[in-house]
Amino acid sequence: MSIILYDLAGADPDLRFSPYCWRTRFALAHKGLPVETVPWRFTDGAAIAFSGQGKVPVIRDGETVVFDSWTIAEYLEEQAPSPTLFGGSTGRAHALFINAWVDAVLVGGIARLIVRDIFDVIDPKDRDYFRSSREARFGKTLEAVQEGREQRLEGFRDLLLPLRLVLRRQTWLGGVAPSYADHIVAGTLMWPRCASRISLLDDNDIVARWFERVLDLYGGLGRSPKRP
Amino acid sequence: MSIILYDLAGADPDLRFSPYCWRTRFALAHKGLPVETVPWRFTDGAAIAFSGQGKVPVIRDGETVVFDSWTIAEYLEEQAPSPTLFGGSTGRAHALFINAWVDAVLVGGIARLIVRDIFDVIDPKDRDYFRSSREARFGKTLEAVQEGREQRLEGFRDLLLPLRLVLRRQTWLGGVAPSYADHIVAGTLMWPRCASRISLLDDNDIVARWFERVLDLYGGLGRSPKRP
Repeated sequence: MSIILYDLAGADPDLRFSPYCWRTRFALAHKGLPVETVPWRFTDGAAIAFSGQGKVPVIRDGETVVFDSWTIAEYLEEQAPSPTLFGGSTGRAHALFINAWVDAVLVGGIARLIVRDIFDVIDPKDRDYFRSSREARFGKTLEAVQEGREQRLEGFRDLLLPLRLVLRRQTWLGGVAPSYADHIVAGTLMWPRCASRISLLDDNDIVARWFERVLDLYGGLGRSPKRP
Repeated sequence: MSIILYDLAGADPDLRFSPYCWRTRFALAHKGLPVETVPWRFTDGAAIAFSGQGKVPVIRDGETVVFDSWTIAEYLEEQAPSPTLFGGSTGRAHALFINAWVDAVLVGGIARLIVRDIFDVIDPKDRDYFRSSREARFGKTLEAVQEGREQRLEGFRDLLLPLRLVLRRQTWLGGVAPSYADHIVAGTLMWPRCASRISLLDDNDIVARWFERVLDLYGGLGRSPKRP
């Protein structure tokens, strides 16, 4: 039986752009586990009330319900140890730092570049919620947050330096094979890829070349989805 | 036979403050390997010419010479697998990201706060080299780099957010036990501790409490050294 994944969708149900749901999609594919996604919108809280909270990703695996992308990755690793996502408990502990860095640095950095683009692709019923919650978070309008992004893009790219230093020495963030570390970063980069037309990465950046390799994984899982 | 470590020292040979040598000190202690340190100054290139390059840490283990803190950690893990520094190849791959983040973000951030203090503690014979190389790197005088650090300290502390997110969930960066990830970050924090009187961390920061735990490891290795 497939695992069910509640997956953030846009007005077009084929637009799937959540950086957290994408981490889960890659992790499921890494394990070779079949998945059936259910398109979900920000204001569909009732549809996942069974999980006891209001955010996606949520998975339902038979009788088991798990939410939060990190917790889901830990759950999948326990249920199906091979191929490994973490390479053991120390590998998992170290991956938590990568998860934290992405959440603390990349997510906010990308949001400041594409938040108004996201508004354009989400479901009309989500727009009031999205605008008011994000404008409260940033303390300005969505338009003001995104304004001048061309001038700020270089500064964002500078934040990727630690990735660059690693990828000069190894093919994957997981070393000789992809690990959940690759899914964390690539899943997050699926967000601008599927919700915006921005060219976030410089084509000549070693990070862009690594991202292309991730897009090819799992039968081109990251390459195929609809883009705006 | 003890491993010999060429270790950056100040005018006072008991002042040892290199963030890279400290990573090696912690890694050696983690493995329970006895070490004999040789005080070394920036202009003592000839003393480590046998390593084929000009920077410390350099270790000599019998006939084997290894330089570069990361390469030394890999070497120690190969020679003495237990207790592990990395927890396997994926753990090592993920630790390389932490190493890269520390080098790309923390080292430069700390240097901007203490570079003039370092000048005060290094050996007089190193001063011309240190001033000219660092002033070329920063494009201004040591004094100008460090100026206004009180106003910039909060901004530096903000950079530690990924560490904070991890330490809220686990005791060590390595998870339930210290790993080389802990040594990378704590070794780097030994640099301001042993070359400056700055209070880099807020005492109430969870990162400060973790650092105190690291200082207690290995018989208080990090707690005992001389400070300026």
